[in-house]
Amino acid sequence: MTYETLTFETDADGIATLTLHRPEALNAFDLTMARELLAVFTGDATADDVRAVVVTGAGRAFCAGMDLSAPGNVFGLDESLTPTPASLQAHLADPSVHPEYADGLRDTGGKVTLAIHALPKPVIAAINGPAVGIGATMTCAMDLRLASTTARIGFVFGRLGIVPEACSSWFLPRIVGVQTALEWFYSADILTAQEAYDGGLLRSVHEPDELLPAAYALARRFVVDRSPVALGLAKQLVYRNMAVDHPLEAHLADSLAMWHTSVGDGKEGVAAFLEKRAPEFTGQASKIPDVFPV
Amino acid sequence: MTYETLTFETDADGIATLTLHRPEALNAFDLTMARELLAVFTGDATADDVRAVVVTGAGRAFCAGMDLSAPGNVFGLDESLTPTPASLQAHLADPSVHPEYADGLRDTGGKVTLAIHALPKPVIAAINGPAVGIGATMTCAMDLRLASTTARIGFVFGRLGIVPEACSSWFLPRIVGVQTALEWFYSADILTAQEAYDGGLLRSVHEPDELLPAAYALARRFVVDRSPVALGLAKQLVYRNMAVDHPLEAHLADSLAMWHTSVGDGKEGVAAFLEKRAPEFTGQASKIPDVFPV
Amino acid sequence: MTYETLTFETDADGIATLTLHRPEALNAFDLTMARELLAVFTGDATADDVRAVVVTGAGRAFCAGMDLSAPGNVFGLDESLTPTPASLQAHLADPSVHPEYADGLRDTGGKVTLAIHALPKPVIAAINGPAVGIGATMTCAMDLRLASTTARIGFVFGRLGIVPEACSSWFLPRIVGVQTALEWFYSADILTAQEAYDGGLLRSVHEPDELLPAAYALARRFVVDRSPVALGLAKQLVYRNMAVDHPLEAHLADSLAMWHTSVGDGKEGVAAFLEKRAPEFTGQASKIPDVFPV
Repeated sequence: MTYETLTFETDADGIATLTLHRPEALNAFDLTMARELLAVFTGDATADDVRAVVVTGAGRAFCAGMDLSAPGNVFGLDESLTPTPASLQAHLADPSVHPEYADGLRDTGGKVTLAIHALPKPVIAAINGPAVGIGATMTCAMDLRLASTTARIGFVFGRLGIVPEACSSWFLPRIVGVQTALEWFYSADILTAQEAYDGGLLRSVHEPDELLPAAYALARRFVVDRSPVALGLAKQLVYRNMAVDHPLEAHLADSLAMWHTSVGDGKEGVAAFLEKRAPEFTGQASKIPDVFPV
Repeated sequence: MTYETLTFETDADGIATLTLHRPEALNAFDLTMARELLAVFTGDATADDVRAVVVTGAGRAFCAGMDLSAPGNVFGLDESLTPTPASLQAHLADPSVHPEYADGLRDTGGKVTLAIHALPKPVIAAINGPAVGIGATMTCAMDLRLASTTARIGFVFGRLGIVPEACSSWFLPRIVGVQTALEWFYSADILTAQEAYDGGLLRSVHEPDELLPAAYALARRFVVDRSPVALGLAKQLVYRNMAVDHPLEAHLADSLAMWHTSVGDGKEGVAAFLEKRAPEFTGQASKIPDVFPV
Repeated sequence: MTYETLTFETDADGIATLTLHRPEALNAFDLTMARELLAVFTGDATADDVRAVVVTGAGRAFCAGMDLSAPGNVFGLDESLTPTPASLQAHLADPSVHPEYADGLRDTGGKVTLAIHALPKPVIAAINGPAVGIGATMTCAMDLRLASTTARIGFVFGRLGIVPEACSSWFLPRIVGVQTALEWFYSADILTAQEAYDGGLLRSVHEPDELLPAAYALARRFVVDRSPVALGLAKQLVYRNMAVDHPLEAHLADSLAMWHTSVGDGKEGVAAFLEKRAPEFTGQASKIPDVFPV
C-alpha cells in the first residue's frame, strides 16, 4: 500500500519504520494522515513479518499537531448535534444508530491511538523534533518513547481551549504519574526533551543523528531470539492487567496465556534453553488468542 | 462568607488562597475546619472568578493533623453501631436509611478530599511546615504539591492504631507508586521535604520565603491565557480515565469533551492561534458538562 | 511445620525470615517449592506472632526461576485441553466443574503471588543474587524490594517463548510505570541491581553483607510500636483502592476501616499519644474485618 502522508517500510529483521511525511507542514496531522495511520496500524503493521514498529517524522519535526489551517477537521463539527454519553456510546457500538454523527463525533486522534494500542507488538516513538498536540499524545499510546535533544513536547490543548485527546488522559498518568500529567495539561507549555525525560515521559534522549540508531538497537533487542507471540501477549497483559481492579483477574488471563504459549513457542524456547542454542520461534502474532474474560 | 478556622481570598488573576488558620494549634484539623473546608470547596471555590486554589497554613505549620484533644471527633463514634460494607453503602446512597449513623460513620477527611477532587480547577498545596495525618493526606487530593524546606510530612496513622484515610490509599499510590506508598504507611514516620521530594510526592521544594511566590507563579501559568473549561475537563478526564480499565472508555469521554470545547472555547482558542494573538476565553468552569457515561 | 525447599523462622520482634533453600539448584522454583510457599503464606505466616516477613535465598542466588529440568511443571500441561476465558473462570470459581484441568491449568506462580498479596502484613524481598523468571515476578507481589549489589533481575519470559506470569503484569506497571515494565518484558534481558533500582523496582541496593541487616531494620520500623491491624488494613486499602475507578469507593472502605480501628487499636494509640508513652496494641491481624463492598 502507498500513502500520501507517511511511509512504511520493514527491514529484514522485521523492524518497520513509519515516517510521518508532510515535512513542508512539519508533519501536521490532518484527516488524510488520520485515515492512513489507522490503515497502517490495522493493516500493514499487523503482518507477521512486522515484529516491531518505529515511528518518526520526516524533516525537522515529529508532528506539529492538528493542521488547524485545514478545513473540515475536528473543528468542523455540526453544532446542531447534541451528543450525550449515552448517545455517543450507542453510536460507538453501532454507527447506524446516529447516522447524523457520521464520523464527526468520535475524536480523530483517539481512533488512531486505539489502533496503536491494539497492535500486539512493540511500538517505539523516535521523536526527532517538535511533537505538539496530537503529535505529543499519539506517542503516549506507543510503548516506549526515545527523543532527540531537539525534541519539544507540548500538551498545548489548554491554550487552544480544547481538551487533551487521543486517550492521553488514560495513557499519560500511567507513564508519568498523576501529578506530572496534570501539570503538563494545566500549563499547556512546550517541554524540552530534558524536561520530558525528567518527568518520565521519555525513556532516553539522544543526539539527533543517534536517535534512529538507538531506536533500532532497542527494537532489535525485542525481536532477535524473542517470541512474537510471547511479546504480543505480554503487551496485552500489561495494558489490561495494570488497569483492572484485582490481581485475580490478571491470574485468569495469565493462566490462559501461559497455557497457550506453553503448548506453542514455549516448547521451542525451553528446548533451546536446555540445549544451549538460539530458539527458532514459529508462533505468529496474528494468531494470538483472546485470553481475557468478557 | 467568613470562616473560623481558615481564610479564603481571591486575587485579580483568579488565584485564590485558602489559608488554614488556627496557628495557635498548628492548624490542627477539627470538625469546624472539616465543615468549613467542605463549605469552601463546594461553595466559594466553585465561583467562576476563582481559576485556581493555593492551599497553605498560617504560622509555622501546614496542618498538624486531627486535633486529638478535641472531643467528638472521629473517635467519638458510637461503639454499638455495627456497620458493614452494605449498610454503609446504603447510608451513602441515602442517609435516611440508617439515621443512627448520622454524620459519624463517614470518614471526615474523606468528605473533604472528595470535595477537593470534585472541584474542576487546579488545586495546589503549598506546604509551609509540618503536615501530619489528615494534614498530609488532604494534600494528596490536591493536584500538585510544593513544599518549603521546613515541611515535614507524616502518614502517621500506623502509630496511632488507625488507618490512612481521606481516600489517601486511592491518591498516594497514583502519585508515588505502590512501593513508596506502602513504605510510608507502614513506617508511619515523619518525612523531610527532601525525602518526600525524592519519593515523588512533592513537585518542588523551596526556601521558606520562596514557597508562596513559586506556588503563585505556577498557578499563573495555569490561568493566564488558558481556558478554564479546558482545564476543568482535563482534570476530570485525568482522574477518571487513569483509573478506568480500557482506553475505549477514555475515548468516549474524550470525544464528548472535545465536541463540547470545540463548539465553545476551542473556537476562540483556534482563532487566536491563527491570528497570532492572546485568546479571550469566555467559557465557565461552573458550566462544564458531564462527559462520563453512568 | 517443616519444609523441603525453604525455611521459615520468626524472631522475638515478630519478624519472620523465609529463606528459599535449594542452594544446590540456585533455589530454582519447582512444584514442591510452589506448594510450600503457598503453605507458608496461607499458614505459618498468618499467625499473629508474625508481624512482617523477609524473603531471601540461601547461598548465592535468590531464585533462578522455574526448574526447567524438572518434569511435570507448567510445561507438562495436557495439550488436548481447550481452555477458554469462560471455562477457566468457571474452574476458578468451582474446581469440580472441569476436573480434567486438575491443578494444571492455573498458573503456578500466580497461586503463590495471590497468597503473598492476601497476607495482611508487610512482606519484604531481600534479593541476594540472581532472581530470574518466577524468581523475579514473585518479588513484585511483595511490598518492598531491597537487593544486594550482586542481584540480577530477569523477566526473561520472552526468550523462553512464554508470557510474564504470577500476576506480574498487574504488579510491575504499578511499581515502575508502564514504559519500564514493557521494556523489561519485551527485552527479556537480565538487569543489574543498579538498572533495577534506576527503573524503580528496588527500594534500595546494599553491599551483600548489609542486605539482611537493612531488611530487618526496615521491618523493625514496621512492627515496633505500630498496630498490626492498622498496617494490615493499610495494605489492603492501598492495593484495593489504587486499582478501583473512583475515590468514592475508597471512601467507603476507609470509613469502615477507620470505624473498626477507632473502636480498637485506635483507642490505645490515641491514649498513648496524649499520654506521651509508647502504645501497647492488642489488635490481631488475623481478625481484620472485611471492609470492602462486594
